[in-house]
Amino acid sequence: MGLRRLHVAGPLAEGEPVALAAGQAHYLRDVMRLGRGDEILVFDGCNGEWLARVEAIAKAGATVIPMRCTRAQRMGPDLWLCFAPVKRGRIDMIVEKATELGAARLLPVMTRYTDVSRVNLDRLAATAVEAAEQCERLDVPELAEPVTLSRLIADWPSGRPLIVCAERSTAATPQALAREVGAGPAGILVGPEGGFAAAELDALAELDFSHFLGLGPRILRAETAVAAALACWQCLAGDWSERPFSRAPHDER
Amino acid sequence: MGLRRLHVAGPLAEGEPVALAAGQAHYLRDVMRLGRGDEILVFDGCNGEWLARVEAIAKAGATVIPMRCTRAQRMGPDLWLCFAPVKRGRIDMIVEKATELGAARLLPVMTRYTDVSRVNLDRLAATAVEAAEQCERLDVPELAEPVTLSRLIADWPSGRPLIVCAERSTAATPQALAREVGAGPAGILVGPEGGFAAAELDALAELDFSHFLGLGPRILRAETAVAAALACWQCLAGDWSERPFSRAPHDER
Repeated sequence: MGLRRLHVAGPLAEGEPVALAAGQAHYLRDVMRLGRGDEILVFDGCNGEWLARVEAIAKAGATVIPMRCTRAQRMGPDLWLCFAPVKRGRIDMIVEKATELGAARLLPVMTRYTDVSRVNLDRLAATAVEAAEQCERLDVPELAEPVTLSRLIADWPSGRPLIVCAERSTAATPQALAREVGAGPAGILVGPEGGFAAAELDALAELDFSHFLGLGPRILRAETAVAAALACWQCLAGDWSERPFSRAPHDER
Repeated sequence: MGLRRLHVAGPLAEGEPVALAAGQAHYLRDVMRLGRGDEILVFDGCNGEWLARVEAIAKAGATVIPMRCTRAQRMGPDLWLCFAPVKRGRIDMIVEKATELGAARLLPVMTRYTDVSRVNLDRLAATAVEAAEQCERLDVPELAEPVTLSRLIADWPSGRPLIVCAERSTAATPQALAREVGAGPAGILVGPEGGFAAAELDALAELDFSHFLGLGPRILRAETAVAAALACWQCLAGDWSERPFSRAPHDER
């Protein structure tokens, strides 16, 4: 078991004390049994990852001191995931899987057949942080406020292809679409369990930046479609030629 | 909402009554409010999918009569998923995602760092059935009894490449591996959260049928690795050039 790895509010710099949140202090002290002088890894999303020493720890909070940068900052591909909220449990899976699979930004989108009316952004943000800590990312995906599909389309930035996971006669395989769209900024849109309404599909099809993606012959649940589309995209147009950071020269994990 | 779709014990044939399980009868009667004369879809894993009429329904059971074959039987790629059991919730996700992503056979494998000692095969089998019903598969993946990794290796059939999801200097990208291995029978092996032990990796590397697969720079949870590896494999070497069966001529789901 390696060192614990926590996301903290930066900016991280050598010798500059960092305050941990109460929940993190509780976790380190009461669950991991760490005390003053013990070491952890911290990252803030923009200044890399640092080895840090626990300087003070109590029930209400803790302070750690960054000692040495262990990994320089780097970001993954500029890939957004737009997803229709689904029920609790499955929406957490969407956020967790999207974080592990390297989405840079998560955008909840309310569609016609979305049957969830409220999104607990605080809980989803905590899920994203936890997943980022666990999967060794150096950043946490940004979680946007929910918007309607028409708002999403109206505000969509130019130069960013929108890849719509939906059956349509024009739906392409991941390979064909990766060849067509290439690497670079992109957004993937996954609808709710009930799919998109016909009018939504028509509106999406009319956009000059939309591309329809087929995910095979079986009907996938929303969180499966998210994981499948992101994995294929990272594999074909993203950063999957890279390997996990190795902490030891002979680490064959 | 389309017709309910249930997996039943076959063999299905026109006019031959089929008994439903008590749980299915309860679901149709008390949850879906179906009665005599209502229609459902049934499949048995080898005789395609049939439109069937409810002939009798009570608390303890139900009988349906297959009337018309709606889809001819077809099987997906001959792809096995070997997975180390993980804790409840996440192991159910593995079975659900693997079913949606078209694994033909699911093999629980006990490895050195597997920290789950008992596998509830009945619950996992029910999860696989439910996922197959939901994703429109025409078969249910076979669920094997748990075996040790050394047993799995010793009994591995010749002519079936074993794709090991693990970091190793020889780990290839999905594209490179798909080119090397090609379509045809294959097995994907995903380890537990703690990874494989060094001795296990060495033993796996020595096999002339093993191939190491890299899944990018982030450390994936077991169920994420399962979904990612299966999705990439189906996309690159499986059946993802196919599209979902369309029940209506203009179905643009």
